Amino acid sequence: MIDRTDPAGAIAAAAKRCSNWGRWGAEDVRGTMNFLTDTKRVEAARLIRRGVSFSLAQSFDMDGPQKGWRRRTNPVHTMLDTGTDAAAGIQGFPHGIGGADDVIAMPLQCSTQWDGLGHIFDHGYAWNGRLAAETVTSLGDRVTGIETVADVIAGRGVLLDVGRAFGTDGELPDGFAITTSHLTATIDRQGPSSAVGPGDIVLVRTGQLARTRREGWGDYAGGPAPGLSFTTADWLHTSEIAAIATDTWGFEVRPNEFDDAFQPLHQVAIPHIGLFLGEMWDPDALAADCAADGVYDFWLTAAPLPITGAVGSPINPIAVK
Amino acid sequence: MIDRTDPAGAIAAAAKRCSNWGRWGAEDVRGTMNFLTDTKRVEAARLIRRGVSFSLAQSFDMDGPQKGWRRRTNPVHTMLDTGTDAAAGIQGFPHGIGGADDVIAMPLQCSTQWDGLGHIFDHGYAWNGRLAAETVTSLGDRVTGIETVADVIAGRGVLLDVGRAFGTDGELPDGFAITTSHLTATIDRQGPSSAVGPGDIVLVRTGQLARTRREGWGDYAGGPAPGLSFTTADWLHTSEIAAIATDTWGFEVRPNEFDDAFQPLHQVAIPHIGLFLGEMWDPDALAADCAADGVYDFWLTAAPLPITGAVGSPINPIAVK
Amino acid sequence: MIDRTDPAGAIAAAAKRCSNWGRWGAEDVRGTMNFLTDTKRVEAARLIRRGVSFSLAQSFDMDGPQKGWRRRTNPVHTMLDTGTDAAAGIQGFPHGIGGADDVIAMPLQCSTQWDGLGHIFDHGYAWNGRLAAETVTSLGDRVTGIETVADVIAGRGVLLDVGRAFGTDGELPDGFAITTSHLTATIDRQGPSSAVGPGDIVLVRTGQLARTRREGWGDYAGGPAPGLSFTTADWLHTSEIAAIATDTWGFEVRPNEFDDAFQPLHQVAIPHIGLFLGEMWDPDALAADCAADGVYDFWLTAAPLPITGAVGSPINPIAVK
Amino acid sequence: MIDRTDPAGAIAAAAKRCSNWGRWGAEDVRGTMNFLTDTKRVEAARLIRRGVSFSLAQSFDMDGPQKGWRRRTNPVHTMLDTGTDAAAGIQGFPHGIGGADDVIAMPLQCSTQWDGLGHIFDHGYAWNGRLAAETVTSLGDRVTGIETVADVIAGRGVLLDVGRAFGTDGELPDGFAITTSHLTATIDRQGPSSAVGPGDIVLVRTGQLARTRREGWGDYAGGPAPGLSFTTADWLHTSEIAAIATDTWGFEVRPNEFDDAFQPLHQVAIPHIGLFLGEMWDPDALAADCAADGVYDFWLTAAPLPITGAVGSPINPIAVK
Repeated sequence: MIDRTDPAGAIAAAAKRCSNWGRWGAEDVRGTMNFLTDTKRVEAARLIRRGVSFSLAQSFDMDGPQKGWRRRTNPVHTMLDTGTDAAAGIQGFPHGIGGADDVIAMPLQCSTQWDGLGHIFDHGYAWNGRLAAETVTSLGDRVTGIETVADVIAGRGVLLDVGRAFGTDGELPDGFAITTSHLTATIDRQGPSSAVGPGDIVLVRTGQLARTRREGWGDYAGGPAPGLSFTTADWLHTSEIAAIATDTWGFEVRPNEFDDAFQPLHQVAIPHIGLFLGEMWDPDALAADCAADGVYDFWLTAAPLPITGAVGSPINPIAVK
Repeated sequence: MIDRTDPAGAIAAAAKRCSNWGRWGAEDVRGTMNFLTDTKRVEAARLIRRGVSFSLAQSFDMDGPQKGWRRRTNPVHTMLDTGTDAAAGIQGFPHGIGGADDVIAMPLQCSTQWDGLGHIFDHGYAWNGRLAAETVTSLGDRVTGIETVADVIAGRGVLLDVGRAFGTDGELPDGFAITTSHLTATIDRQGPSSAVGPGDIVLVRTGQLARTRREGWGDYAGGPAPGLSFTTADWLHTSEIAAIATDTWGFEVRPNEFDDAFQPLHQVAIPHIGLFLGEMWDPDALAADCAADGVYDFWLTAAPLPITGAVGSPINPIAVK
Repeated sequence: MIDRTDPAGAIAAAAKRCSNWGRWGAEDVRGTMNFLTDTKRVEAARLIRRGVSFSLAQSFDMDGPQKGWRRRTNPVHTMLDTGTDAAAGIQGFPHGIGGADDVIAMPLQCSTQWDGLGHIFDHGYAWNGRLAAETVTSLGDRVTGIETVADVIAGRGVLLDVGRAFGTDGELPDGFAITTSHLTATIDRQGPSSAVGPGDIVLVRTGQLARTRREGWGDYAGGPAPGLSFTTADWLHTSEIAAIATDTWGFEVRPNEFDDAFQPLHQVAIPHIGLFLGEMWDPDALAADCAADGVYDFWLTAAPLPITGAVGSPINPIAVK
Repeated sequence: MIDRTDPAGAIAAAAKRCSNWGRWGAEDVRGTMNFLTDTKRVEAARLIRRGVSFSLAQSFDMDGPQKGWRRRTNPVHTMLDTGTDAAAGIQGFPHGIGGADDVIAMPLQCSTQWDGLGHIFDHGYAWNGRLAAETVTSLGDRVTGIETVADVIAGRGVLLDVGRAFGTDGELPDGFAITTSHLTATIDRQGPSSAVGPGDIVLVRTGQLARTRREGWGDYAGGPAPGLSFTTADWLHTSEIAAIATDTWGFEVRPNEFDDAFQPLHQVAIPHIGLFLGEMWDPDALAADCAADGVYDFWLTAAPLPITGAVGSPINPIAVK
């Protein structure tokens, strides 16, 4: 149970209990990605049985959910050259070749993404006890930039479809706090293929995204949502997972469980556990397949673009079963 | 041998010989990605033996090679919030949580990328015989946008290290045209793990990128370079590969092999073969590993960001052996 | 009176009546700016009597009205360097100097702006009878780009405060169509300083912006609004004004006066009259001053940024009385 | 004479001698713009005699001088819609109307610009003694943002054509330090219309821009250049000018006059004098006119875009004689 009146105390206590600072040395920049070893990858490769692949990414376009909070916009994609131009013969290339080029401007947090280790701080400290002020400046994250995990995020993925387990028509209501009990019950319900262990990348489906497909974005970006309870911090820590993602904007339940708080589980998970959080993933096609064949684990590649110094990255996670 | 005096005729003839228009129906939007089947993926999964993973992406930052040609710039990454701000206590969040967000503006062709099927046209026609003017407008590619292959680009990768086979210290000189003979000789030299077949994603290493690491970018973006000869068009077609990539800016040899031409192999490969071309990949760490263990094939995931209507996408290809 | 059932006929007829094609030669790129002569400027300079200056621009920031229509966003302003960084000593400059730089990404139509002559076409024709397809491509407006009037937009401004003349508390209701009668009655009411003649830049205040300040943006960008009636086309033509601007998103009344139409007055004014339209100006401080002293004309400078090939420009118009 | 071996001492001494901190109260955000009064504007209006107007802006496009220093790029202008699209009939508007929209992404310091008061700091202090770290954060300049002078920069401009006075063919060589003697001799040479007094906006022409027109940009952005000597700090202070601009990238002479320094005159002028600096202006057409008629003063409007919190702004200064 959460004492709603003492968020600062609860956060501090969880941070202390769950801290991985120093676990991989003072120089570490990869946090829980250290759990995703070559051995784990070899084991995970066996999960490719049918060869069917799924994109777990939402679209990147102007029809996204962003409404300007913290200057987050939807992606603006514009053309530098077009087929219309090519056909009009204005491009100046010889022998009939024509081309199209394009440009994008987008927040790295606008759609399906990883939160990097430089994304969230606690009392001025970033992952592994570094000073946030020295780590993430206007020049970007000079220590734990997302490029430091460019090559590592491929391994075993596990879908925990809490929406199907506890929701109505597969969808949890907004404000539903997913506890450790819900997670373990979902694992039990789904069977052995969804057992979670060290190095796994866990994908929790709440069903909120499915609801927005039917009802429109509404306040998907920052409004009420189902999500992980603050109380799962210990499970996130002791399970030794490499990363966890949801189909929601903010990973954790909203409104947050304290009377006055802002993303308190982030405050523990990223700077203290060193955990990579995925947000705004689209698990729905994969989840339908898992529900159909009863197999909830798969090979997952979710490689960030190595944008030097970025505190996160847009991604297109690919699951293969 | 190429008749340097008749590029238009040579291009038209190759386009005719190599055309896949209609092969997968009039509605097809995936071109050679149709060769990358679930069955191929199951076979490719067996290539994950040691679990070691490699990022094949160059960096995305201002230190890139772009110099403004066709308004292509290097990525501009800026911060919306920083750790410095968080430490200064100006973010307005409760209980000590702080955060950093960031933004990127970049051409989709600025660094490691896929050319999508809407990237190049021949005499006003795009892939599968569509009118370029109706396919790629200012609104983007409304038919063959890169999002149409969001879920499919995972399978067997094969490295053909032509640089090591025919270069000096592993590097081909600028202007070196890689012919089908060079490709097959490289395959022979490397051994059976580098046999190329339907559905494969072929990565040709020229060594030019390694040279720029030593000497600076110079004219990497658009200048002279080793690359595929125009004469490989038939091999690209008959081999039934799903995609091919190089460590160079423009995939094909530069200067091009005709007296007056601009990327003539593109003009055949993309609109007629329906082939996905990767450019500016970084194969060097992988290539060193392949040279060491003699195994040149691997599991490869190179998922584009599903930017709606994009004619290409920045990518971080991940190879796992 | 407008025949609401025949927009195509009404637009074609107005276009024919009001056409200035060829008036300043076949090569002309400045349209009605030709009316703004050096002589007019000399006369206008006499209007600077008190030396008081007013900015007629709205803010350029994320709190603007844009909601994504036609991919128009609000401006995104981000920092490349900050004072926080400078104070943290990370900038690497000697002797205590520190600096801040910044970046903006914005549609040129996002806030206070000029519509250039390449902004609107009629049946494929742009200003002066040019083919739109040859004039404005992905490379921009290669003939009538906004840079062609970079040096000319300074002269006499006249405020027509139709909101004060015909509105409630100075504000016209949404959907209020301002006719020529309203304009001339406003001139009569305001007195001789608001007489309109050749070369003038007319600023029509509807009061809608004042309302949004109180009530929020709502559908300011593209929704219902007071504005010029389609029937003012002839007045816009015969008055020989250089330009006209309003405090609304779209200059003309919305919903438009035909059952099925989109900005029909634009379709006549820009390509046929060659008239520069200003949108989203903020006349309120100036209007209060004019109401107080009874002087409605002033020196006005509204210089576009010379963005090569742009079809419009953000501006900060400065009125001096 | 400058003691090249003690930049820190020289800067500190000049800062102390020239400080305007507190001169207009602790809350002041306009610095030397306080000198530009309504009275000054009334006097300046008399300078409009012939009505001829000049744009003093360089172009805003990809052909600019920026090469990436401090992530400064040239402007990237892209189209959201084009005439080519309109002609192709894909825009979906009724009755033949078509349109073109566009977007720009640019550093605010990329071309003709004002440096705002939040652009440069000295030992962690910004204009008027404010802490830089509290004034300019990732959210922008929350106190002295360029919007605070949106309405004021219109008044008397004076051209000091030092290039014509002391250069060869009107051009000073790179590294030429313009001293107070050069300025006063230029004023003497040009005659009484170039006398400089309180509230004036001074435009110093070095001729470097004219040279780049002939020879290409070279290292215009950040390389050697003629410019103001550090020793002019006192003249900048005591003359009580409102602003000063040059046709160079960096306003002051480069290389700087100390053995180890970076823009030391900025370090005094902006945070201590509170002076607005204009850079990359194009005075050449105006200068030719002034040389021809012997009149060196004019009405000048150089209004920044009111980008909320910006530390500078692109501008199109308009001079009228």
